[in-house]
Amino acid sequence: MTSDTTPSGPRWAFEDFHAGEAVPLGTRTITAEEIIDFAQQFDPQPMHLDVEAGEAGILGGLSASGFHTASILMRMMCDTYLLDSTSQGAPGVDYLNWRKPVLAGDTITGSTVILETRRSRSRPGIGFVLVEHLMKNQNGEIVCEIRNTGMFGLRNPEVGDAD
Amino acid sequence: MTSDTTPSGPRWAFEDFHAGEAVPLGTRTITAEEIIDFAQQFDPQPMHLDVEAGEAGILGGLSASGFHTASILMRMMCDTYLLDSTSQGAPGVDYLNWRKPVLAGDTITGSTVILETRRSRSRPGIGFVLVEHLMKNQNGEIVCEIRNTGMFGLRNPEVGDAD
Repeated sequence: MTSDTTPSGPRWAFEDFHAGEAVPLGTRTITAEEIIDFAQQFDPQPMHLDVEAGEAGILGGLSASGFHTASILMRMMCDTYLLDSTSQGAPGVDYLNWRKPVLAGDTITGSTVILETRRSRSRPGIGFVLVEHLMKNQNGEIVCEIRNTGMFGLRNPEVGDAD
Repeated sequence: MTSDTTPSGPRWAFEDFHAGEAVPLGTRTITAEEIIDFAQQFDPQPMHLDVEAGEAGILGGLSASGFHTASILMRMMCDTYLLDSTSQGAPGVDYLNWRKPVLAGDTITGSTVILETRRSRSRPGIGFVLVEHLMKNQNGEIVCEIRNTGMFGLRNPEVGDAD
């Protein structure tokens, strides 16, 4: 399991995810500038581009595009574990709920809650990790929840059996 | 229904979405530059940042981050109907499947298929539009599918009844 380039392998492999545990993803404050920048590229609706339009609308302020919020979560996952992992990607998202607006100046804390882990039968070196990602604002309110399954390589495929 | 600023109201209101119809979202070619730019901001995994890493990996080339693909769809929706609509937002996504990689140079065609429409009982001026968004590549393969419900204001709330 060793090589010259990665003496001990990635920090996070399938075996490091345990049902019932949560991985903290850190905390970030979302600026007006980044909300507007994303919106100009991908979601140029007035409430994502303009403070006054946001305040006049149903979201109550300059608010991040929903896919911007999801993309911020993606970055948090990368910075916390994905970039130093055996990740084999994810086939999709089971659901994604935007429960509260993410407004300019909000401070968002993320976590990945591990719901279930199981080894693949058809691909012995791979395991599936079912998770729910949560993002909460500075008031403890959930702003976004995403459930999906990630695929991760096993550190020790020869140990134990697949389900 | 008229005012000085919007003589006839937005082009797209709840009444303009009909179950069984599809709204074409146009076609776009995805460049390596935009894939890398998104990845640097939100998903700096090697297969989204580097051609050689992408070609060596399971996706077979420099591939767009999954949330980049979803964000491109968001932009297609904005440009086609959302920016000229009575949209009241969306509470989330029922599912999002990344079925094939979106590689640099791929030409993607989008569509929004209307599955179901119904007026709100609790909010008489609003209706729900259940849709599936599809993105296909130049080979006709579905690369991404997203199902969700959008909320749209009615053009004529006084006509007909809610379910």
